[in-house]
Amino acid sequence: MFTGLSAFPLTPTDESGVDEKAFAGLVARLAEAGVDSIGALGSTGGYAYLTREERARAARTAVDAAGGVPVVVGIGALRTSQVRALAEDAQQAGASALLLAPVSYQPLTDDEVFGLYEDISREVSVPLCVYDNPGTTHFTFSDELHGRIAALPNIGAVKIPGIPADQAPDRIAALRSTLPGHAAIGVSGDAFAAGGLSAGADLWFSVIGGLLPQQCLAITRAAADGDADRATALSERMEPLWALFRRYGSQRVTSAAAEHLGLVSHPNLPKPLRGLDAAARREVADALEAL
Amino acid sequence: MFTGLSAFPLTPTDESGVDEKAFAGLVARLAEAGVDSIGALGSTGGYAYLTREERARAARTAVDAAGGVPVVVGIGALRTSQVRALAEDAQQAGASALLLAPVSYQPLTDDEVFGLYEDISREVSVPLCVYDNPGTTHFTFSDELHGRIAALPNIGAVKIPGIPADQAPDRIAALRSTLPGHAAIGVSGDAFAAGGLSAGADLWFSVIGGLLPQQCLAITRAAADGDADRATALSERMEPLWALFRRYGSQRVTSAAAEHLGLVSHPNLPKPLRGLDAAARREVADALEAL
Repeated sequence: MFTGLSAFPLTPTDESGVDEKAFAGLVARLAEAGVDSIGALGSTGGYAYLTREERARAARTAVDAAGGVPVVVGIGALRTSQVRALAEDAQQAGASALLLAPVSYQPLTDDEVFGLYEDISREVSVPLCVYDNPGTTHFTFSDELHGRIAALPNIGAVKIPGIPADQAPDRIAALRSTLPGHAAIGVSGDAFAAGGLSAGADLWFSVIGGLLPQQCLAITRAAADGDADRATALSERMEPLWALFRRYGSQRVTSAAAEHLGLVSHPNLPKPLRGLDAAARREVADALEAL
Repeated sequence: MFTGLSAFPLTPTDESGVDEKAFAGLVARLAEAGVDSIGALGSTGGYAYLTREERARAARTAVDAAGGVPVVVGIGALRTSQVRALAEDAQQAGASALLLAPVSYQPLTDDEVFGLYEDISREVSVPLCVYDNPGTTHFTFSDELHGRIAALPNIGAVKIPGIPADQAPDRIAALRSTLPGHAAIGVSGDAFAAGGLSAGADLWFSVIGGLLPQQCLAITRAAADGDADRATALSERMEPLWALFRRYGSQRVTSAAAEHLGLVSHPNLPKPLRGLDAAARREVADALEAL
């Protein structure tokens, strides 16, 4: 389950709701490309903005369109009772695993975050992935807390933020030493993925993999083959996209890129989020065409 | 509407939902104390954690219990369409004004935040208060953006974060110069309120005012009478509480204080939020008894 490339597509959404046909198309395209798993309703998939009903339908759509490729479904929400309901819906939809971030409004304490995972982990029957994303949750995990949470039942993986390549071996070794052996470590932050995989991460949770699966599979396979130089070189070819991610945010860039590739219509982000302006779209198109 | 003391009570909530009887009691107690307005479903009132239905019921309960004192209702949510629905519900419940924070998951741009207020302000028929609270929304307003937003229709006030007393006159003057004359400026950050009011803010949006209205009214009236020294001295008496706010967060401290005063039962915060531990509760009780 938690290996290789886990590709996270957009959930194209406008004021009338989720475009389920376009979403199914994005998921099917990833399955056909041969990704190892599909991450439905991740941050790029806008999970936090959708209603319970929209999320339940999107989870079913993803599992149906994935044609047997395992689907990880994001179940994060502000309130434990909402997370519990979303976990039920995702499992009923056929999710192979669940992804849970400690979404916050009031800043959370370590004990509150531990309590969230304690409450949810004992109620689920598929593996749970701890989603460590301080850029959106504003919660910072210590390794000690990661270790306590990963010792709970049903914790299958930890998804960590991007780490620069020169720090990745030490960072992954330190985290590995605090986790039980069965817990996988997945890297995110697409620009850093090649370094993370070559430094021993088990998988890559990828935003751009949800749109450009072939390129990301090539990076993932090169790292798995021990060819760190090739993984790095393939990643560096995508630097124009990484630069746009840093500048405009990965979700807005991926949204514009998906439009450019004709995979989704416009608009496809839930308001108040807005798509990029015309000049930034041109930059995205140029970066894609250069690949 | 936007003057004096606006007191923000807790919305006591446990896993079974909102304790509407206790909430009505908190609101009625504030009305009897003579506060100028009541802020239902602010940050301390846990608005972000509640469902649309819970929020609609709480808004009705607050208006009913307020006995004619104006009620400001928080309508913040991640998605514009949700905010629109919450604004409708709050107005149908009889809200005299609405409080809207740019709640975020993906970091928001200035244009996205402007677009949110543009969309909502033109649809409402009661004044809207811009809620600037970077500690929970992780969005930082520039004065230029405050000015653009306040020029939209129906913007009645701006609620700003706490400012140390020595900086308050300059800060309030700078903001005042960017806002249209009809837009009130309200301070929050209870420890800084005396300084803000004496520096010319129109009102105090108060967390502790939702629990200790008499003490906060005394501070507010002293500042309105031009007696800045007395306002400061009254505020300094509450320093043990401000210290606990800084240490544990105002919502957790207010929750424990409300329990100590017998106004709410335990638990009263929505999970994953947790109440304070026994030692911290003792500190809260000591601070209250010293008042």
